[in-house]
Amino acid sequence: MLRLGPFAAAAARFLPAGPRPGPLCLAGNRGSFARSWLLVGDRGPLSRQVRAAAGGERVPVLKTPKGTRDHPPAQAALRERLLSAVVSCFKRHGAAAIDTPVLELRETLVGKYGEGTKLIYELQDQGGELLALRYDLTVPFARYLAMNKITSMKRYHVAKVYRRDNPATTRGRYREFYQCDFDIAGQFDPMIPDAECLKIVHEILSDLQLGDFVIKVRLGGFSVPPWEAVLGMTGVLLRLQVTARLVPTGGLELIERLLQDPKLSQNKLAKEGLGDMKLLFEYLTLFGITGKISFDLSLARGLDYYTGVIFEAVLLQQEKEQVEEPASVGSVAGGGRYDGLVGMFDPKGRKVPCVGVSIGIERIFSILEQRLEASGEKLRTTETQVLVATPQKHLLAARLKLISELWDAGIKAEMLYKKDPKLLKQLHYCEDTGIPLAAIVGEQELADGVVKLRDIATREEVDIPREKLIAEIRRRLEP
Amino acid sequence: MLRLGPFAAAAARFLPAGPRPGPLCLAGNRGSFARSWLLVGDRGPLSRQVRAAAGGERVPVLKTPKGTRDHPPAQAALRERLLSAVVSCFKRHGAAAIDTPVLELRETLVGKYGEGTKLIYELQDQGGELLALRYDLTVPFARYLAMNKITSMKRYHVAKVYRRDNPATTRGRYREFYQCDFDIAGQFDPMIPDAECLKIVHEILSDLQLGDFVIKVRLGGFSVPPWEAVLGMTGVLLRLQVTARLVPTGGLELIERLLQDPKLSQNKLAKEGLGDMKLLFEYLTLFGITGKISFDLSLARGLDYYTGVIFEAVLLQQEKEQVEEPASVGSVAGGGRYDGLVGMFDPKGRKVPCVGVSIGIERIFSILEQRLEASGEKLRTTETQVLVATPQKHLLAARLKLISELWDAGIKAEMLYKKDPKLLKQLHYCEDTGIPLAAIVGEQELADGVVKLRDIATREEVDIPREKLIAEIRRRLEP
Repeated sequence: MLRLGPFAAAAARFLPAGPRPGPLCLAGNRGSFARSWLLVGDRGPLSRQVRAAAGGERVPVLKTPKGTRDHPPAQAALRERLLSAVVSCFKRHGAAAIDTPVLELRETLVGKYGEGTKLIYELQDQGGELLALRYDLTVPFARYLAMNKITSMKRYHVAKVYRRDNPATTRGRYREFYQCDFDIAGQFDPMIPDAECLKIVHEILSDLQLGDFVIKVRLGGFSVPPWEAVLGMTGVLLRLQVTARLVPTGGLELIERLLQDPKLSQNKLAKEGLGDMKLLFEYLTLFGITGKISFDLSLARGLDYYTGVIFEAVLLQQEKEQVEEPASVGSVAGGGRYDGLVGMFDPKGRKVPCVGVSIGIERIFSILEQRLEASGEKLRTTETQVLVATPQKHLLAARLKLISELWDAGIKAEMLYKKDPKLLKQLHYCEDTGIPLAAIVGEQELADGVVKLRDIATREEVDIPREKLIAEIRRRLEP
Repeated sequence: MLRLGPFAAAAARFLPAGPRPGPLCLAGNRGSFARSWLLVGDRGPLSRQVRAAAGGERVPVLKTPKGTRDHPPAQAALRERLLSAVVSCFKRHGAAAIDTPVLELRETLVGKYGEGTKLIYELQDQGGELLALRYDLTVPFARYLAMNKITSMKRYHVAKVYRRDNPATTRGRYREFYQCDFDIAGQFDPMIPDAECLKIVHEILSDLQLGDFVIKVRLGGFSVPPWEAVLGMTGVLLRLQVTARLVPTGGLELIERLLQDPKLSQNKLAKEGLGDMKLLFEYLTLFGITGKISFDLSLARGLDYYTGVIFEAVLLQQEKEQVEEPASVGSVAGGGRYDGLVGMFDPKGRKVPCVGVSIGIERIFSILEQRLEASGEKLRTTETQVLVATPQKHLLAARLKLISELWDAGIKAEMLYKKDPKLLKQLHYCEDTGIPLAAIVGEQELADGVVKLRDIATREEVDIPREKLIAEIRRRLEP
């Protein structure tokens, strides 16, 4: 088996016992061979099942695993639109794409997510390495940086992650879901990459027109005790801050006040933290986005979990709708600084400072999905520009010849797979699928060496000389 | 926990014992919370590991699972280029995208791949359903059609599949690899969709300029006995056919001769099969691609595995290079007709005829990869158009303000994350990463209300009035 080629080895396994077939049979593409075996007539494991299913002995279960879903064309098209908006923002900020396997060594993931470790999908021990499905894109990124000794990188990664979580599919929580991560790794001057991450969240949420939002920014990087002091002495001020969003100066004013506080200034870490926040707000002011930033001191707890700024974006109207789960349901993006992670993978514990953002794409997707349903707008699932049609019988050859010319010219074209479809049926297909043009060749057109070009919307038809057709179609399709 | 929002529930698991934190903490985006936990200072499972790693007690294993790989930016960019070429062909032929989960119910896959079933990755039984990783995209497509009672569809699907196969990574055989499938499901007139699948293979292999190739087409759909007769009586003719590629007429001539053969014409199935092949070749002639089609009768075995035409594309020069594995190594695409698969998933065994093609993308990828290395060409991994630079110190604010204007105008821009980077360093960054333009703001430019726009290649610098900058950059970047 080892001497066989990549496809051959896989292919050979599909063959029944008995004389080994010749080269072509072995050479089949995996896909085609998977298919081939599925069609075994009377032998093989499959046919038994076919008979079983046909005979109703055993009804196959037709479902996707719990917490997962198929994306039919309309949803796939919507998702493609959404992801491309996010990715184009990441590219606008100069990020490079990387890809990592869906499978990671179990030990790469285990112990990284606290209680979340319970939710990791583990693969069966089938011999060899113990594997698991990635739980997020952050740990694999850190593993990648440490493994390749990369100390500076700006990357994005859009891919599926897996969690044996409690699905709440209506609210966009799945066991298989996409994450869209942008991260900046490297030793840089304070708060410059951090500010860019907030700018990115602001750009994406604005582009997608999800309605009003606020990005809550929280201090990190120093321990709790001084904060209890802070909470004590600026209690009144804080109660205001929890609810009220800040005007640009307000953010700085607050920080200034805290900085000037005699008790607080005694704590070095607190002073540094506030100094960083001041710097961050100066940068966000230059980006002109402080209007949507809320400097949130509502929480003292958990601050020591972070090595720096952490933030989270919340849709406000979502927040209102769902009073039960005020802050959580509307949450559509989050991130922060994590300077310790890469060091965990480095044998010598060498650290690579990182800050990143993750867009809560599933939540946004279900919002857009609901919106699309409400609007009744029908999303095109194909990009076909021209349907090649014939008005009479016995013209299949003419259609095949013409469509092949269009394909070779790079024009997106379709035809019905019937020998003699009715013209009306062909035109209805255009209307149903949103194809803007029909290129009609009948006996008369063939005789005159023209093609009848029909605008589906206006129903206008013009005869175009065959040799001018491609140019005319291109002209019509120009935006 | 169940009352918590989608992120909250996940987030809560990351929290240590003790008083539950307030809303923001719970609201954290999963990504950010994954991060947050990783940064636990002195508590939690993580910190122990950090200390372990730092103290060298335990060196973490830094690798991806056997047969899988990371894609660094250069490879990710090449793959993106390759996949978009394939997908644009699929779209040109009017296919819609669908997506299905990487996870399927074990019973959906098991028994579908014959011996290949051994190679299916199974998930550990962690309670609930028994799951496995998809082995190809064809079985999930059939499951999708049956589950949704779809009887007609033209779809493409580009995604990763998983096989516990014997990796041969240098030849593009991995355990996690991409498949690019295009399939046409539905009851249509014979050979029209089949011919389009061959046209698609022809278009893709021509677009990618992989060198000379041949698409081997094999008859299927009728049982072996008559073929032994055929092989016997047209032995001489066939020995020619095995090696020689056919000229368009040649293909038809052969079929005609076989059709006229008195012995053969007694077998109804054989006649039908040859009739289909004749039809196919007429269509392929209209598509003008028969020059690369080889009507391959070299194999009688395995014919009864198929319900119709099967085909496979082979790179000829690859074939020469690798004499050991003639047909298999060069195999870059394959497919065929599989009319029985969907019926297996239908409780009543209702059939949906299907024909499809799968592009052997990993094989093509490694060919392009080797070619790129040989050429020494450096692929850009980012799309950044402008670097915002400053020539003196204390101008960070000016850079931040300008870059934010560019981002808001949709221009892809970067800056170095240092407060006071040297101009030379900034210009070198442009050269290293292929950024074509630098927008330089110094004290003088700020005073004059201009920006110095530098063409990195020619080193020409021009002062542009600030209000005209965006327009000028767009003009420069026009293709």
